[in-house]
Amino acid sequence: MASLTINPATFNTQVAFRRSLEKGALILYDEVESNPESPTNISGSESDSQNQTTETDHGDHDLILKATSVLIADLCQQFDGGHPGGAIGMVAIGIALWRYAMCYSPEDPTWFNRDRFVLSNGHCCLLQYIFMHYAGYRDMTMDQLKSYHSDRLDSLCPGHPEIQNPGIEVSTGPLGQGIANATGLAMAAKHLGSIFNRPGYPIVDNTTWCLTGDACLQEGPALEAISLAGQWGLDNLILIYDNNQIQSDGPVRLTNSEDINLKMKACGWNVINVDNGSRDVNGILSAIHSAKVRNGKPTFINVKTVIGIYTKNSNTRKAHGTPLGEEETFHLKSRLGFDTNLSFDVPKDVADFFASIPIQGAEHVRKWQDLLGEYERHYPDLGTRFRERMNGKAPEVINTVSPFDLSLNVSGWSNSPLSTRDGSAYVIQPYLKRHDCFMVGTADLDSSVGLAWEGKEDFQSPNLSVAKEFRGSYTGRYIHFGTREHAMAAISNGIAAYHPGTIIPITSTFLMFTLYAAPAIRMAALQDLQVIHIATHDSVSIGEDGPTHQPVEVAALYRAMPNLLFIRPADVEELEGAWQAAIASTKMPTMISLSSEPTEQFPGMTNRQSVLKGAYTIIQNERADVTLIGVGSELEFAVQTHKCLASKGIAARVVSFPCQRLFEQQSREYRRETLQRNKGIPAVVIEAFVSNGWERYADAAVCMKSFGKSLPPRQAQAYFGFQKENIVKVVMAFLEDWHNGQVQGEFQELAQIRI
Amino acid sequence: MASLTINPATFNTQVAFRRSLEKGALILYDEVESNPESPTNISGSESDSQNQTTETDHGDHDLILKATSVLIADLCQQFDGGHPGGAIGMVAIGIALWRYAMCYSPEDPTWFNRDRFVLSNGHCCLLQYIFMHYAGYRDMTMDQLKSYHSDRLDSLCPGHPEIQNPGIEVSTGPLGQGIANATGLAMAAKHLGSIFNRPGYPIVDNTTWCLTGDACLQEGPALEAISLAGQWGLDNLILIYDNNQIQSDGPVRLTNSEDINLKMKACGWNVINVDNGSRDVNGILSAIHSAKVRNGKPTFINVKTVIGIYTKNSNTRKAHGTPLGEEETFHLKSRLGFDTNLSFDVPKDVADFFASIPIQGAEHVRKWQDLLGEYERHYPDLGTRFRERMNGKAPEVINTVSPFDLSLNVSGWSNSPLSTRDGSAYVIQPYLKRHDCFMVGTADLDSSVGLAWEGKEDFQSPNLSVAKEFRGSYTGRYIHFGTREHAMAAISNGIAAYHPGTIIPITSTFLMFTLYAAPAIRMAALQDLQVIHIATHDSVSIGEDGPTHQPVEVAALYRAMPNLLFIRPADVEELEGAWQAAIASTKMPTMISLSSEPTEQFPGMTNRQSVLKGAYTIIQNERADVTLIGVGSELEFAVQTHKCLASKGIAARVVSFPCQRLFEQQSREYRRETLQRNKGIPAVVIEAFVSNGWERYADAAVCMKSFGKSLPPRQAQAYFGFQKENIVKVVMAFLEDWHNGQVQGEFQELAQIRI
Repeated sequence: MASLTINPATFNTQVAFRRSLEKGALILYDEVESNPESPTNISGSESDSQNQTTETDHGDHDLILKATSVLIADLCQQFDGGHPGGAIGMVAIGIALWRYAMCYSPEDPTWFNRDRFVLSNGHCCLLQYIFMHYAGYRDMTMDQLKSYHSDRLDSLCPGHPEIQNPGIEVSTGPLGQGIANATGLAMAAKHLGSIFNRPGYPIVDNTTWCLTGDACLQEGPALEAISLAGQWGLDNLILIYDNNQIQSDGPVRLTNSEDINLKMKACGWNVINVDNGSRDVNGILSAIHSAKVRNGKPTFINVKTVIGIYTKNSNTRKAHGTPLGEEETFHLKSRLGFDTNLSFDVPKDVADFFASIPIQGAEHVRKWQDLLGEYERHYPDLGTRFRERMNGKAPEVINTVSPFDLSLNVSGWSNSPLSTRDGSAYVIQPYLKRHDCFMVGTADLDSSVGLAWEGKEDFQSPNLSVAKEFRGSYTGRYIHFGTREHAMAAISNGIAAYHPGTIIPITSTFLMFTLYAAPAIRMAALQDLQVIHIATHDSVSIGEDGPTHQPVEVAALYRAMPNLLFIRPADVEELEGAWQAAIASTKMPTMISLSSEPTEQFPGMTNRQSVLKGAYTIIQNERADVTLIGVGSELEFAVQTHKCLASKGIAARVVSFPCQRLFEQQSREYRRETLQRNKGIPAVVIEAFVSNGWERYADAAVCMKSFGKSLPPRQAQAYFGFQKENIVKVVMAFLEDWHNGQVQGEFQELAQIRI
Repeated sequence: MASLTINPATFNTQVAFRRSLEKGALILYDEVESNPESPTNISGSESDSQNQTTETDHGDHDLILKATSVLIADLCQQFDGGHPGGAIGMVAIGIALWRYAMCYSPEDPTWFNRDRFVLSNGHCCLLQYIFMHYAGYRDMTMDQLKSYHSDRLDSLCPGHPEIQNPGIEVSTGPLGQGIANATGLAMAAKHLGSIFNRPGYPIVDNTTWCLTGDACLQEGPALEAISLAGQWGLDNLILIYDNNQIQSDGPVRLTNSEDINLKMKACGWNVINVDNGSRDVNGILSAIHSAKVRNGKPTFINVKTVIGIYTKNSNTRKAHGTPLGEEETFHLKSRLGFDTNLSFDVPKDVADFFASIPIQGAEHVRKWQDLLGEYERHYPDLGTRFRERMNGKAPEVINTVSPFDLSLNVSGWSNSPLSTRDGSAYVIQPYLKRHDCFMVGTADLDSSVGLAWEGKEDFQSPNLSVAKEFRGSYTGRYIHFGTREHAMAAISNGIAAYHPGTIIPITSTFLMFTLYAAPAIRMAALQDLQVIHIATHDSVSIGEDGPTHQPVEVAALYRAMPNLLFIRPADVEELEGAWQAAIASTKMPTMISLSSEPTEQFPGMTNRQSVLKGAYTIIQNERADVTLIGVGSELEFAVQTHKCLASKGIAARVVSFPCQRLFEQQSREYRRETLQRNKGIPAVVIEAFVSNGWERYADAAVCMKSFGKSLPPRQAQAYFGFQKENIVKVVMAFLEDWHNGQVQGEFQELAQIRI
């Protein structure tokens, strides 16, 4: 293959490369004017695999390849930690992406139409940090690079990339997540482009790039997302596989002998191979050039690399997660021709090679702004809408969609038992229909979760041929994820991260099966991303489906998870509050937990505003003997028990408690006023989940103590003691013990244990 | 294709079919002697797809197909619930499996060498229940069949199959799990066969059959398991795909357009197609015949079926989860030529067709017992070991492997800081090496979790070629799962379920990434399966890897999960107790949560026996002002704080609290004695997790309030307040509030919130 000779001072290679893409033609790099005398020239024969390890095989890419490898070694060595091997093996990919292929502006890391980059193999973050440094991200100074694995609190170089830092699109680290995030980022671009682009005005047309190692491609959520990216024909998604065939345990074939290219093809992807991918920048660029021709399929570039190339640990698992050691770092520098006395050195030629990137980036932004200006003149309404979406303007307050305004009220529903999933449908469907910012997905439970509004259009490739009732296009906002809960949540994180506020993704499945997605739900919480999870069938009252479907313990996880709102509304009025909270919480995910079976409504008692306080008194009693805390679909048992107790001369208060996290945010006065435990009044919580965590608010529990049982809904409840007669009995017995001083300070489980 | 004419009264078709398999030759069914006069004759032209819906297309398979479909309709109709369509579409598969292909004994459902059957699409359980009824499982009476979706507490026909019921190998329902369970069941058979079989003595050679719908094949854990089954060449595994192209949301192509056959081939599977698979029993049998030729690969039989065939909802999503309704049930009977006045009818010809199964089953068992008898005579030692394994004889008590016996003690480790993962390695490796019943897996964290004993052999296909250091075979007991945490746990459930006690699987990964596997960990708890999960790097002290790797909230899930032991030992002595508990708990899974960083040892204070009580006093003080509860690697902070408080004149007790569930099982007296809160002594818990759930045992917490941060281990701890000086300060402030009566009954979070 041709040698590469480019003078970046006189030739803007990135622009040339991009221009060649626009023309649909590949510029051969040896055609470019050369100036071999210039000290900043880049030359090399990277693709000459026969020659790859000889010292004669240098030139300017070679210098960058080697200098960057040495820098990675130094940065891992300083605090004796980090993952050097993968990053070293991917330097050629890094050059191809940050120097040539990606369209971005280091000066403006949140520019709307920038290419998105996701490092799914997040442990190789040094690669990204170093190229961000080269590319001129202002904050990413050498001083910051050196904070990798340090004890600096202000480090922008944590052990895995974190979204809170400029230039990082999503936090990665948990394997497989990044591939799904990238799928979501690519969906968001497709969706926005299909809504807003007009002929000659490609105002949203960015590419999403994702780097993956061997391990991410083994993870279920990645495999689910790969199927979906193929399904949706996301040809703006390019997945680059750092195929070094080494993972933590050793050679990949210890655990994976599959034909990955064939598998990707079977999933509807283009597949391109690159050999010698730790050296051959041109080969990678050639593959990228093919990948950028959008043919209705995402592209998988299988780049054969060598983990820890140049080092003594190359091609072994030792290269994965262990620094080279002082001695080998020294030898590495010596072997590659660097001054062994220098550390953290970026040779001037290397710095110069990237010097034009900020200027080019600014030019990208300026051109796009010009285009947008013209667009706004030609399409003023669309332009206004686009600005609104860019600003992430919050939808009007949901409160305006009162259930009491709905025609449904005419049929008297508000006094009839109604499941909260059906209540949610009534509350939210008109709103979802009206507000374009919502993309609503379901894990094959379309008809069970109540989010599909009338006339909704599916998000689908226009190439998909299905029956008219399922019509879809990229403008569609309803997403059939299939039974892929984990990818649903992880892809939704990517959609939310595209430009926070522009699209608010909603997922839906049974509460039980959100557990499949929990690692991705966590990642939204960790990244302050607004994703709303609708979790239905949230109790043993799901009934006959039995214990595999009855989620007795998963709420404990979500209530414990930082920065997540877990809300269990009791009726339609509380649903209004729950949805308000979810929509208002722009910096965190929310899960709304809903019942599948009809439960009572409490008109005049429940209150949407009070839901925002987490808990509130719905039946007050100044001389109460006990506070009954009802949660979600079990509030009806608290209210019923209150009435029965009254008939026996026992005064109870009733508190509805939809959200622990919101309650924790209230003042101590409000919390005391609501619970009144400081007055010596004991509290009993009633919820068809295990009691773990309720000990903070109650003295006793009518809760689950075991997994559930396959029985019809009401029988399942009764079997576990959720029945007013039983609750009255156990609460009275508890109060007797309480007054006898038997149980203070010792949380009591009151529900009879049946199995 | 040939018509089928068999008289089951005179010809044992199952035996013939199996015999043909043994010979490696396919018997054509029209070669079988026929008796067309017999009323129990079976005839049909099932493979004539041109003719499939005409009323002339009947015969005895046709009768079974139709009568079973009607029975499914009746059973769903009686309580207006259940999933009829999938079961109806799979009746032909059911006939092929239960009548011809599977080797089992209804009279002896736990016969060791039986074929294992897994219904991954568990919602279609009526299919399994009905064929179990046909096949003569004693408990599966018609009365029991009619309990499907009833309120009967003793039902053997819950909404999804449950392992507790005779003849059910694993509980299924959560999609994707079954495929992974089947992979584990097949591994167990391969492993035991490779250990115990001798030429002429195939004492463990059963086949594992798994039925899957479209949805399971979309789930990440199934995709992970499929890769692994291909990796391991499990040619004793046959996955039958009920390819009806309909799922809950509608046509499968709404969410999946991939080439599944190509994907399975890429993963190393044999692929066989069957057209007309809702009718063509012979076609299915022909495919099965090919599948049973063991060629070093698992087999995927792609059976094209019609959901709800015969019904008006056929081939639509309405057929999936909705009973037909009274009217259509009536019409279905009428259309198929059945008496519309009869319900739950099993025609005599149908019953007769299966009449020989119990006899054949008993014969299978008898022959195998004879074989085993001969085997024991030829190989008495092996025979004894095999009996032991069949009896699930518990390994000797781990207590005999005392750390104080180990040579390690010589180097004084017991007084030196040591991470509990390293402690665990010292405690358990010699034991794992010695006891064949353990199969130990890791999700690509071999060198991080400390379970790989010296000289361990990997579980691998003998066809795999790898470097000598990674030698493997089916006798190997160390499993490289790759980064497939979910499949690791779900496959381990299958291994454990093969014959509980025969193999005890152990998994290992970081505590954070057990969350990927949580749905499968739950399924072990629900099924009373002994699986031991080793969860390392269990605190913010994992350090630089940052918040994506620091598990602050997941312990709350496991502590809330019924029937799971979650144990966090503090040092090597407690590790002994933790492992003892895990090994002794034969009816539940255990998770042992371990630190990655060195922490103090407490010789003479910690106590292995007391770990079995969940919590115990390690520093007593008769006049204590406060009880400090230390957990796992944070016990050292409790002990340090105790000392500092003493120097300030404050008397503290210290309680080590490795396991909440074990503590809950203790008497009230023991619990009071340990915590002493009833004496008015406040308790402060110290753990680097969120405090949710500790409110039951403590009045205040030095716990996490947020996600973690990427910092070196000790700095990460200090950043969040885990540092003796800080703890002393906040505990003293708390005690002041306590004595002033400011905080009683209101759980206090003491750790400073830093981010």
